Amino acid sequence: MTKSRKPHPSHAYGELKRRHRNIGRLTAIAEIISRDFLTTMPEGAYEGRMDQIAYLHRRIHDDIVCCDGQMHLEEAQEHLAAHPKLWNEWDSSNLAGMERIYKNHAILDHDTMEESARIANEGRRIHRECLKANDWKTAQAHLERVVTHVRKLAKKKAKFLNSATLYEALIQDYSPGVSLKQLWDWFNHLDTELRTLLPQVIERQKSRKPIVSLAGRYSKDAQMWLNRSLLELLGFDFDRGGLYETGHSPVEGGTPDDTRLVIKNVDPKNFMESMKSTLHEGGHGLYIQGLPSKGGREYQPVSHDLGTTMHESQALLIEMIVGRTPEFFEFLAPRLEGLFHTVRDPSLTAGNLHRLKTRVRPSLDRKSADELTYFFHIFLRFQIECDLIEGKIEVADIPSVWTEWMHTHLGVMPQSNAEGFMQDVHWFVGKFGYFQAYTLGHIVAAQLFDTMQQDIPNLHSRIRHGDFKPITKWLNRHIHSKGSILSWDALLKDVTGHDPSPDFLISHIENRYLGE
Amino acid sequence: MTKSRKPHPSHAYGELKRRHRNIGRLTAIAEIISRDFLTTMPEGAYEGRMDQIAYLHRRIHDDIVCCDGQMHLEEAQEHLAAHPKLWNEWDSSNLAGMERIYKNHAILDHDTMEESARIANEGRRIHRECLKANDWKTAQAHLERVVTHVRKLAKKKAKFLNSATLYEALIQDYSPGVSLKQLWDWFNHLDTELRTLLPQVIERQKSRKPIVSLAGRYSKDAQMWLNRSLLELLGFDFDRGGLYETGHSPVEGGTPDDTRLVIKNVDPKNFMESMKSTLHEGGHGLYIQGLPSKGGREYQPVSHDLGTTMHESQALLIEMIVGRTPEFFEFLAPRLEGLFHTVRDPSLTAGNLHRLKTRVRPSLDRKSADELTYFFHIFLRFQIECDLIEGKIEVADIPSVWTEWMHTHLGVMPQSNAEGFMQDVHWFVGKFGYFQAYTLGHIVAAQLFDTMQQDIPNLHSRIRHGDFKPITKWLNRHIHSKGSILSWDALLKDVTGHDPSPDFLISHIENRYLGE
Repeated sequence: MTKSRKPHPSHAYGELKRRHRNIGRLTAIAEIISRDFLTTMPEGAYEGRMDQIAYLHRRIHDDIVCCDGQMHLEEAQEHLAAHPKLWNEWDSSNLAGMERIYKNHAILDHDTMEESARIANEGRRIHRECLKANDWKTAQAHLERVVTHVRKLAKKKAKFLNSATLYEALIQDYSPGVSLKQLWDWFNHLDTELRTLLPQVIERQKSRKPIVSLAGRYSKDAQMWLNRSLLELLGFDFDRGGLYETGHSPVEGGTPDDTRLVIKNVDPKNFMESMKSTLHEGGHGLYIQGLPSKGGREYQPVSHDLGTTMHESQALLIEMIVGRTPEFFEFLAPRLEGLFHTVRDPSLTAGNLHRLKTRVRPSLDRKSADELTYFFHIFLRFQIECDLIEGKIEVADIPSVWTEWMHTHLGVMPQSNAEGFMQDVHWFVGKFGYFQAYTLGHIVAAQLFDTMQQDIPNLHSRIRHGDFKPITKWLNRHIHSKGSILSWDALLKDVTGHDPSPDFLISHIENRYLGE
Repeated sequence: MTKSRKPHPSHAYGELKRRHRNIGRLTAIAEIISRDFLTTMPEGAYEGRMDQIAYLHRRIHDDIVCCDGQMHLEEAQEHLAAHPKLWNEWDSSNLAGMERIYKNHAILDHDTMEESARIANEGRRIHRECLKANDWKTAQAHLERVVTHVRKLAKKKAKFLNSATLYEALIQDYSPGVSLKQLWDWFNHLDTELRTLLPQVIERQKSRKPIVSLAGRYSKDAQMWLNRSLLELLGFDFDRGGLYETGHSPVEGGTPDDTRLVIKNVDPKNFMESMKSTLHEGGHGLYIQGLPSKGGREYQPVSHDLGTTMHESQALLIEMIVGRTPEFFEFLAPRLEGLFHTVRDPSLTAGNLHRLKTRVRPSLDRKSADELTYFFHIFLRFQIECDLIEGKIEVADIPSVWTEWMHTHLGVMPQSNAEGFMQDVHWFVGKFGYFQAYTLGHIVAAQLFDTMQQDIPNLHSRIRHGDFKPITKWLNRHIHSKGSILSWDALLKDVTGHDPSPDFLISHIENRYLGE
């Protein structure tokens, strides 16, 4: 039943809103079908489902660019220019969002959209198989198809956006408004600073109490109870979402009323792995559940999230920043004893758990990297992407470039592609330009946490008592519920009083790893 | 990737095939979303998902009746008339199916389609709640909305189909081509015959060895293992489907490559209940998995099933006919001892289980009714539907009509609406005209089993050894793989050599319940 609301004075805008409600419905369906694809679907439906999802994206594209869309946009913009007082900021931001979506689609045809959807879903499966078998040949063939497709996309986008380079055009999908030059500045700054901090932190950690490795067996049921409980404490609403263990690379998705979080495997020897994934995907999930979804705003562009940078900031803030405070482990430790039926296990003390999760040392794996060297993993991927999209290197060159860089910059050496570039799903699903958003997200997370600590009284003591909800409430109020009313950097400035700056991240790392 | 095939000489038909492939894709998506709705979706997504499913059905409707569909149909029909030799029977049946679908939709508008989809999905939930709480008031309000909607639909259909009555028009959705007069003839014949047999069977069963009731506790895991194993033995392909326990009324659905069977609850005191549901839904599932789904036939109207009568025949053949042979229980009994860790349990002997499942006695519940009195449950519903749709009675009258009829005809008396009309989900989801298809399906099942016994050597001895696959193979070859190439009654005649006749069912019941 549609509720009757006072129509907007711009008829064209009203019509666009109606269309975006329907486009949003189809997009929500595509989301749920894609979640099903990763969680419930029997293997034999693979080909058919791929085809159905791709077709649905083709239809969504056609709906977005349909015939008189351009005309309605122009009419609505004229109305806004003539009667600015009749438009509130939600509606004017919404119109801007509609225009952005229209233009992003109008430069592409529906065959391209269908191919992107195929790559996005098929790639996830191909990645899983290649990683399992360390299968370079299949990976190479698939990535060559992806890179050809992505370069074609990038050319169209770059021309339309007047981007300095093809790669800059791709970045816009993930961190809208960021120039490649700006990124290089931030990245070079971080590179210099973190490269200086790294040996100091390693040296300092040598004098710490030695770390006791986890040595227990942690049942799947117990781990999943822990993961679900942490999400509940964070305010994730299981009446509007769920957590699934699937064997696929972790991913979040869905809609505010049906948010599905996927984690890969529960490792019986290391509960910290699935907990880490849960906190990360949980941060994403809280963002999705907190987006505007009522009062006629559901499905509208202004209710969308602010893109990957802001999304990753939410994930990293929960996983890496809150989830690695000493107080978090003080809360966790006694409960783990009860959960895993063990007392006086020296590996499960708050201090030991904290040392485990804050140990800094160069490693091969991005996802399990520490908070400091994490940046270098991203920096490598960023540079490879730059060169690959611009045609300076080809897919065939990735393994050697990767190995050499890891050796030169981190002093570690992957023994296989599975330990190297194949660890990530992103390129396999066509996400070139995404990785930088992890570092930007980390920057944003540190900057938000800085303000949050000033805003929430006794934040650290609350964390010690498992009282995590004030964190989510604060994020909800300042970030989630704002949808896309401002751009990600404008919102960040609005909330923290500062433009995005890597200095908050550098300070955070200095404080945590070199402070008293 | 679409495969290149030689195009059909009728260009218009080629275009219609292309469109139906796309309509089929959207329909498959609607199916999967609806399965998700019943199995995985969190409660909080209820409103949103309802809305999305309804919208998708609106779009499917619009695609079917789109602008030049009529013109293409006429062109293709002219081509067929002019060049009959260029058309094989698959293509000409397919074209007939396209026309049927077009006409069925053209008489309705997309608001009506959306409302039907809403009722179909919402009704399932409302039914579950009303049944749990024996809530007549909510049920009445909902059913009044449904009946108003269905009468409106029936009027349009009746006018278009030139049906004798509104109710006859509704039947066409489930048992295409059957007249109300024909139905009454069959039903009156069955009523007379079965009413005569009933006391004889009851009398005869008095002299049987007494039945030992089930008295064990049967764990959910063990029951689900049994249910899955029986489906596997029947040839249900779990690589293309699954079995779910959900709390919703049992239902089947999906696509040949993703067939999902839903059973309600596993009763820890009675494993026969979930087994019965599994065999029933399994019969449906085998039909879905066996439909044509390759070589360009996927998604085409000719690959659809033959409607509810044929569908229910597949379910009842497996559940009631094969699943109640003495040999089925001879196979089952020793395995149950192992599964449930019990030896020499007098309730679990083959003979006792067979007596349990073939005990004939009037009861309140359709789904657990014996094979003989099952008919009377259907006959009651059929008569109420007739009168309700024609406006001779109203929703408010259902409880009293129901109670009186049960008392007069079966000598039993429901103590609540939950024991009465609320036991079935059908009316709640808008399925008026469906019930008769159970009896027609039972007729078809008995007729098919008669021929099958002649075709498959040592059928009963195979069943005794759990060798069920020849049954499925036979059904696959003669029914499933034929899609909609013939009408249900023409196919039945083709396979059995006889027009549909209730005499096969009467003989089957005589043999099973009054034979040696």
